[in-house]
Amino acid sequence: MTLVIYDIENDRVRNRISEACKDYGLLRVQKSAFRGQLNTNRREMLYQRLQQTLGQRAGSIHIYALCERDARATFVIEQTEEERDD
Amino acid sequence: MTLVIYDIENDRVRNRISEACKDYGLLRVQKSAFRGQLNTNRREMLYQRLQQTLGQRAGSIHIYALCERDARATFVIEQTEEERDD
Repeated sequence: MTLVIYDIENDRVRNRISEACKDYGLLRVQKSAFRGQLNTNRREMLYQRLQQTLGQRAGSIHIYALCERDARATFVIEQTEEERDD
Repeated sequence: MTLVIYDIENDRVRNRISEACKDYGLLRVQKSAFRGQLNTNRREMLYQRLQQTLGQRAGSIHIYALCERDARATFVIEQTEEERDD
């Protein structure tokens, strides 16, 4: 499993980063995080594309590879709506 | 290595999540991402604390465990300043 997270101020560049992730078949899991299956070769290609897309602009992009065992050890908390009792 | 990423609208809750990550010795690597060394037990404890901190509010929190091999395969692009030639 591949996880891409990014922190980029420029709206246009940020959108192009998310488009690139979608082009590689990744799914958005958070506002600035995409996840999906990529082999080593495709992961390297995505890295090069994201690097080119960011160019010389300020930003942070991390691409993580998670083996099956690590992927299984993931803790996920997802709550889509406010459900307050008070 | 442990990686925590989150997507939380409520400013106060988001700050409490980042404080919890710092309390566990993690370092901020992006606006909504922390990283550091945690054993399985501490990772589980952090998960429970983050779950309690979020409570019933809307949000997404993922805690990833990365083995040494996966951590080494990480691609990182970090650029701190705009360096435009044009």
